Amino acid sequence: MPLTEPDRLFSSDPKLRKTSRSLFESIEHTPILSPHGHCDPRWFADNARFPNPAELLVIPDHYVFRMLVSQGVSMADLGIPRADGGATEADPRKIWRLFAQNFHLFRGTPSALWLNHSFEHVFGLDIPLSAETADAYYDHIDDKLSQDAFRPRALFEAFGIECLATTEGALDDLRAHQRIKDSGWSGRVITTYRPDAVVDPEFEGFSKNVETFGKITGEDTASWGGYLNAHRKRRAFFKDFGATASDHGHPTARTENLSNLDAETLFQKVLTGSHTADEADAFRGQMLTEMAKMSLEDGLVLQIHSGSGRNHSQQVFGAHGRDMGFDIPTRTDYVGGLKPLLDAVGMEPDLTVLLFTLDETVYGRELAPLAGAYPSLKLGPPWWFFDSYEGIKRFREATTETCGFYNTAGFNDDTRAFCSIPARHDVARRSDCAYLASLVETGRLGMAEAFEVAQDLAYGLAKAAYRL
Amino acid sequence: MPLTEPDRLFSSDPKLRKTSRSLFESIEHTPILSPHGHCDPRWFADNARFPNPAELLVIPDHYVFRMLVSQGVSMADLGIPRADGGATEADPRKIWRLFAQNFHLFRGTPSALWLNHSFEHVFGLDIPLSAETADAYYDHIDDKLSQDAFRPRALFEAFGIECLATTEGALDDLRAHQRIKDSGWSGRVITTYRPDAVVDPEFEGFSKNVETFGKITGEDTASWGGYLNAHRKRRAFFKDFGATASDHGHPTARTENLSNLDAETLFQKVLTGSHTADEADAFRGQMLTEMAKMSLEDGLVLQIHSGSGRNHSQQVFGAHGRDMGFDIPTRTDYVGGLKPLLDAVGMEPDLTVLLFTLDETVYGRELAPLAGAYPSLKLGPPWWFFDSYEGIKRFREATTETCGFYNTAGFNDDTRAFCSIPARHDVARRSDCAYLASLVETGRLGMAEAFEVAQDLAYGLAKAAYRL
Amino acid sequence: MPLTEPDRLFSSDPKLRKTSRSLFESIEHTPILSPHGHCDPRWFADNARFPNPAELLVIPDHYVFRMLVSQGVSMADLGIPRADGGATEADPRKIWRLFAQNFHLFRGTPSALWLNHSFEHVFGLDIPLSAETADAYYDHIDDKLSQDAFRPRALFEAFGIECLATTEGALDDLRAHQRIKDSGWSGRVITTYRPDAVVDPEFEGFSKNVETFGKITGEDTASWGGYLNAHRKRRAFFKDFGATASDHGHPTARTENLSNLDAETLFQKVLTGSHTADEADAFRGQMLTEMAKMSLEDGLVLQIHSGSGRNHSQQVFGAHGRDMGFDIPTRTDYVGGLKPLLDAVGMEPDLTVLLFTLDETVYGRELAPLAGAYPSLKLGPPWWFFDSYEGIKRFREATTETCGFYNTAGFNDDTRAFCSIPARHDVARRSDCAYLASLVETGRLGMAEAFEVAQDLAYGLAKAAYRL
Repeated sequence: MPLTEPDRLFSSDPKLRKTSRSLFESIEHTPILSPHGHCDPRWFADNARFPNPAELLVIPDHYVFRMLVSQGVSMADLGIPRADGGATEADPRKIWRLFAQNFHLFRGTPSALWLNHSFEHVFGLDIPLSAETADAYYDHIDDKLSQDAFRPRALFEAFGIECLATTEGALDDLRAHQRIKDSGWSGRVITTYRPDAVVDPEFEGFSKNVETFGKITGEDTASWGGYLNAHRKRRAFFKDFGATASDHGHPTARTENLSNLDAETLFQKVLTGSHTADEADAFRGQMLTEMAKMSLEDGLVLQIHSGSGRNHSQQVFGAHGRDMGFDIPTRTDYVGGLKPLLDAVGMEPDLTVLLFTLDETVYGRELAPLAGAYPSLKLGPPWWFFDSYEGIKRFREATTETCGFYNTAGFNDDTRAFCSIPARHDVARRSDCAYLASLVETGRLGMAEAFEVAQDLAYGLAKAAYRL
Repeated sequence: MPLTEPDRLFSSDPKLRKTSRSLFESIEHTPILSPHGHCDPRWFADNARFPNPAELLVIPDHYVFRMLVSQGVSMADLGIPRADGGATEADPRKIWRLFAQNFHLFRGTPSALWLNHSFEHVFGLDIPLSAETADAYYDHIDDKLSQDAFRPRALFEAFGIECLATTEGALDDLRAHQRIKDSGWSGRVITTYRPDAVVDPEFEGFSKNVETFGKITGEDTASWGGYLNAHRKRRAFFKDFGATASDHGHPTARTENLSNLDAETLFQKVLTGSHTADEADAFRGQMLTEMAKMSLEDGLVLQIHSGSGRNHSQQVFGAHGRDMGFDIPTRTDYVGGLKPLLDAVGMEPDLTVLLFTLDETVYGRELAPLAGAYPSLKLGPPWWFFDSYEGIKRFREATTETCGFYNTAGFNDDTRAFCSIPARHDVARRSDCAYLASLVETGRLGMAEAFEVAQDLAYGLAKAAYRL
Repeated sequence: MPLTEPDRLFSSDPKLRKTSRSLFESIEHTPILSPHGHCDPRWFADNARFPNPAELLVIPDHYVFRMLVSQGVSMADLGIPRADGGATEADPRKIWRLFAQNFHLFRGTPSALWLNHSFEHVFGLDIPLSAETADAYYDHIDDKLSQDAFRPRALFEAFGIECLATTEGALDDLRAHQRIKDSGWSGRVITTYRPDAVVDPEFEGFSKNVETFGKITGEDTASWGGYLNAHRKRRAFFKDFGATASDHGHPTARTENLSNLDAETLFQKVLTGSHTADEADAFRGQMLTEMAKMSLEDGLVLQIHSGSGRNHSQQVFGAHGRDMGFDIPTRTDYVGGLKPLLDAVGMEPDLTVLLFTLDETVYGRELAPLAGAYPSLKLGPPWWFFDSYEGIKRFREATTETCGFYNTAGFNDDTRAFCSIPARHDVARRSDCAYLASLVETGRLGMAEAFEVAQDLAYGLAKAAYRL
């Protein structure tokens, strides 16, 4: 019995199903572009085997372990590292069993679809995961992981990935990327410039980070001009490692376009830590506009990931640190927030700004009208909690009528769960084909057009938007 | 001709319909749990006949009469009592006729589904209600109401209700519940602790209420400590009458976790009426956290019904008082609002907090991500305006992918319209089965899993969440 | 090959499609009521030929040209007039070619549906528009436009328009309407009172406008009383030209109900330009309530179009002025905003206030609950970006269950693109029939009822709401 239905995510209506399937078959094997994500470049630099099923599929995936935590499983029992270095469960098999016996919690979620897709299509399993099959699963996957065909580079190739972007901080030495380069391996793994640690005054160790930033670049980052130059140099350095984009994870979508003098003054405030929360937000906003202006100079695409309220639980943050599944979306204002940036450079046809959101209410009210007007703006795909069948459906239904397909930027998987990459693209491609089929079968799109759009959504739009 | 289609709410697509029907048949006769609602316990204490069709089905149901009012019918003509005791229509048959001749207003609404369900399945009618059939309807229903089989206890049993919770204020003596107990009747009717009148500084007569609260409990409710103890005692008293939950109807989802000193100071302010509107909200928010802490002591489940802007029309409130169909939803912030409570006790696996909302925009953006992370949180079903086919569909589509089914709490009917209870559970069960069928037929859920989930949604989740 | 599918917008499910088609056939040829829009009355006064395809279909339609601009086409190349009178493309054929070669951008948008409908059903074309067919299209349409059957009055009649309302500012002399009257032509073209220029303190030249307002009406508009009287006189003047409604385009839904003294003081402030932005908003809000009170005197229907953030791009506004496709929706609060007006006159059954929104999140949370309670309120159809298949679907699904059909006001096309009027009503009628079919086929509405509702949505509700 297959774990995944061959016609999954296609409507049960025979006409819709047939049209969806035709469209999907035309792009099923199109190479994967993964222009934004969080894979670890060391996987491809070292090409070491993945240690075990729990460390591959459970412990690093906050989509997965937060669901167990939400039902009372403790993070320590799942082997999630503690901030104080204290003991957590060390036996990966025990962790796997805990995961397996709670697998019913994922019913109806994209995690279930992705995991089952990996189980079946990556590891060749055909029985459902449960308490009963936990050990058989563990042994089977662990055995596979010991084979060369399951090392990172082999999987990268087997997955049909044409290009994969990782995301590194501005202070990263990109050593892993250097080693990939040096290895002569043909896989295209590129970096992305993510300067949050030197741009966000509320980031842990911000002024120390800015100091290091100066040392790395040989710029006087205690001055506003030197600080901006340091960014310019660092962006160039990242471009040497293939970067075609920068990425910015800000709590709000606020931007500013201050005079040079006001920006300098604000910079001194945040550098000395004498800023208010509002000034911290203003500084982040100013930096988005600065980055957009640098994008006009160096051609990097500007990605804005706004609206995640990071580390919502004080207790979890204290005990386990960042990225522990307790980032909660917040209401986000793009119309007011982006205005300063857009007034400065929004009409530039050579600039590409990609917008992401965790606030679905802005799809139709804000994002599609903005992207359907400003030449610099395009919409990134549904992000995080909304990277799912229903999420993609709502995104297309709420944006297409206003900004069409060509103001969107294709799919990106945005994952740190390597084995889920083919599954995520599979879900996105199927969901898009199901949507296109609904347009075709209700007379809103011709079939020939639909084939073109399907290819664009799976490949062409990402390639163009990210300048790959 | 039946008033209700046998396959109502199931998709017309043959595969979806068949699957929906199979799932529904497996739970159609599952006993009803009604863990939150507003039935009058005196019905079951007295077991007197319901007076007449208008007083049973029109006058007390603000879902029904507000629709007529919205089209220009006056509340006086509908027999809605006036605050000043002035005259209103006293002839129930005339009221019924007015209702009947406007029945087309309900086309496409859940009220139409519920009413037709009651007409057909409770009262055995098979012609549509209209101006022409108004009198025949009146006579038919009135005749039924005179029969013993239509007294409250008999209907309770005929409806298949396993447990029904009413909602009483903190000052209620629970005499009706005592009489039910004393009667020896086997029906399980329990109470719920709803302390708004002694928790909300903006409630009519708040300080007087707190004084009475002290007398009833023998505590010095002029002191913060005594006031909290009064709650403890009263919760225990409610538990004696079966309560498994408290319930809180606050305008916002704000919570606070003040130091004991600050809380005491704030308490003195609200007690003396020298508070601002913001301080009133802060006090309500502090009390949610206090209630959550008491829940950890005594095991009561904490229900939060946030975001209803009560008594929107000054004129209607002045003329007719509370609960007159003019409560309008407001935008509600759960992510920021709940943080203090969640930082205090949110990670406790033994605490159950059930969240309800009238702001659908938070389903995907706020509620599902919160419930999909915090062990203490679960989502109540769609409430009030959203207790409907489309409301349930949007709820499931927006929450399941992020928090699954097992962070939700099953259905509750939340009604004061007793005869609508089976109809409301029927609509909810059918809507859920239609949703499950869509998952099955698009390869997102196995059929065996769907049968399990259907049973959980209809019964198991409510039983567990409410500790029934 | 037809450009439009005969069964477009109906579900591919055979039962739904059949029912949708039956319903639609019953209203397909029902006369068009266009009670709100922006056609130029001079078209019907002069009855001159439309100059050429570009000036008819591209240049004046900001839905169309903003999409091209969003992909980097310059406004000058599209012949959009510059504020400074500078040169723009003057060859309409070149503009048409630019439009044609970018026509794929409209895939999946209502613009594509509307344009193809016009191409096929107005101009008799049957090949798709593209770079290749651009010239053939241009010649074909231009030839048609030179024929008498394609002059404005002939098209008005061919479109089956029973009544069309234009929108004029309070200072307009309605000369074009006078000429229509004088011409003896039987087409019913009426005006609408839109006083934004003398009501909005932030409108260009506001105090000058108010001065002119005084001259036109012979009232002392430097005094609050005289200013209000000027409105009364002007409303009466507009009524002489058929007006049955006023219309108000405000950035927010705020209303006020100030004392006469406070209103007078505020009026003096805004008149002298010594107001804050908040006071400007308060004044607009006060005027909504004043207009509602005048509506009770003279019977005009009050339309409120709230929530458009006008002229978002400083650069586009500077270069090209107003209405250039850069108006972006903003979050709008109706529950709080409308309360003062509703407390003043909301319970009046003889008042009709029609609410429009660009913020879909308020459909279910705010608008439907308000309209389902207050007798004065009705909901206008989905507006602007939401005048589309998906927009109408979401509107019906989010509002019907709470306020039914009879608290909505039918369709209006709100367009300045004359040839799109039949297409827009076609889309709206089909979308509504598709929705009604889904109710019928899921047992939520009887077929006989559905036929009645379909007729009401296409004709009866607009006729009643606008008092046509």
